[in-house]
Amino acid sequence: MTRSIGGATRLFAVLGDPVAQVRAPALVNPLFAELGLDAVLVPAHVRPADLAAVVRGLEAVGNLDGLLITVPHKFTVCGLAAELGRGAELAGSANALRRRPGGGWFADNFDGAGFVAGLEHAGHPVAGRRFLLAGAGGAGTAIAVALLEAGAERLTVREPDVARLDRLVGRLERHWPGRARGSAVPPPGDADVVDVVDVVVNATPLGLRADDPMPFAPAELPPGCVVADIIMSPPDTPLLVAAAGLGHPVHHGRHMLDQQLDLYRDFFGL
Amino acid sequence: MTRSIGGATRLFAVLGDPVAQVRAPALVNPLFAELGLDAVLVPAHVRPADLAAVVRGLEAVGNLDGLLITVPHKFTVCGLAAELGRGAELAGSANALRRRPGGGWFADNFDGAGFVAGLEHAGHPVAGRRFLLAGAGGAGTAIAVALLEAGAERLTVREPDVARLDRLVGRLERHWPGRARGSAVPPPGDADVVDVVDVVVNATPLGLRADDPMPFAPAELPPGCVVADIIMSPPDTPLLVAAAGLGHPVHHGRHMLDQQLDLYRDFFGL
Repeated sequence: MTRSIGGATRLFAVLGDPVAQVRAPALVNPLFAELGLDAVLVPAHVRPADLAAVVRGLEAVGNLDGLLITVPHKFTVCGLAAELGRGAELAGSANALRRRPGGGWFADNFDGAGFVAGLEHAGHPVAGRRFLLAGAGGAGTAIAVALLEAGAERLTVREPDVARLDRLVGRLERHWPGRARGSAVPPPGDADVVDVVDVVVNATPLGLRADDPMPFAPAELPPGCVVADIIMSPPDTPLLVAAAGLGHPVHHGRHMLDQQLDLYRDFFGL
Repeated sequence: MTRSIGGATRLFAVLGDPVAQVRAPALVNPLFAELGLDAVLVPAHVRPADLAAVVRGLEAVGNLDGLLITVPHKFTVCGLAAELGRGAELAGSANALRRRPGGGWFADNFDGAGFVAGLEHAGHPVAGRRFLLAGAGGAGTAIAVALLEAGAERLTVREPDVARLDRLVGRLERHWPGRARGSAVPPPGDADVVDVVDVVVNATPLGLRADDPMPFAPAELPPGCVVADIIMSPPDTPLLVAAAGLGHPVHHGRHMLDQQLDLYRDFFGL
């Protein structure tokens, strides 16, 4: 439930394209109500060509205190921020912007930290384990950074866009030499990699639509391998359904956002 | 109460400076809920220098269907619209913008029509009566136009800004020759005018703050003169309290907005 909105209500917006699938308003607005805050988070559908105009326009809305950013704007928005936090700096992408006292936006990224916290909270430790991550987009990059920062032993990133893949692996290599590698091979051709992983993570949009191909071939996964998805709607993606059917522990998308709520509260000073 | 907000929620915003006093969200959001619409109206605090950037930025928000405009933006916003409706054209100011099918905003003004409907609904007919109106700002201008259009016999507009006053009276004179006059004299110096009015209307911001001077001197009003205020917060302005104490029929600000709700529904196709 959302509390009543009046003229003095403070605003937050989540920007995405599409945006109808975002769960942040349904999660955050009840939290505002619980905290007794006269604030509301609304969705804003923003196409890539319009991002700069919207971010600048919203900066001029005096009762708007912050923005959440989702696909496909997490990279681009960094160029619209006056200052980047460490999470955004490392990942090259951001998912939260707050006002700086002197004007302009301060951007940071909590996707990766939220994902790692969600995994660990669900009983899947990160340190010393081997990961296969599909997707080197905004969320994938942030998750890659956070997994290595949290002590993952090895990380393979699979991404069909070779330029994007090389950019991410190069960045990881500079910070954590020898622990990351890339794979541009589509499934199911990477059985050699899948064979030696403890956790696979889908950070692609595959699974948002019922007829999407799966990001991993469930039948190729080694027994006991944890299968994680960051897609929140539908909660049970075809990947998770198939993996659960084969007896794998599965990890749903909502954990990442659930764990981010505390991080957001700190960031926005709520 | 506001219904729950999700990713698919449609947005409306009311733009003003200040905006904390606006009643539109508290009135409109329960109406959306009653209508079963997944839509929300939020306040947006926008300073004059930022109006163009905000209006253009919000035009690029795909799930935002319309804007309501309040003080001090009602004049300026006309220059940001691609097309003006008859109400906005006559008044030179607008308080509602919707998208045009081909892009850009279509602006119209419902302040005047809402005020006239509110007066008549409360049992105070307009046709054939004599009015004294304080304030030639956005709302004042719209009300002046609507009163004459509804058949007011005579209208005196009092406004200390002579250029603004002359502009409005000139416009009224072109459409309704001989029925409007201006007065730049501050109260209580216009007893000659007050003496022959049936209804006085405050369309200035005087009364928003407890220590504002009154827009009319209540002691000078003739017996039976209706005293109307368009200020909605506080509901009982010092003017209305004093006038009621002297036995005058008083007319509160909320009537104007109450009557506008139906006009907005038509305008936005809800």
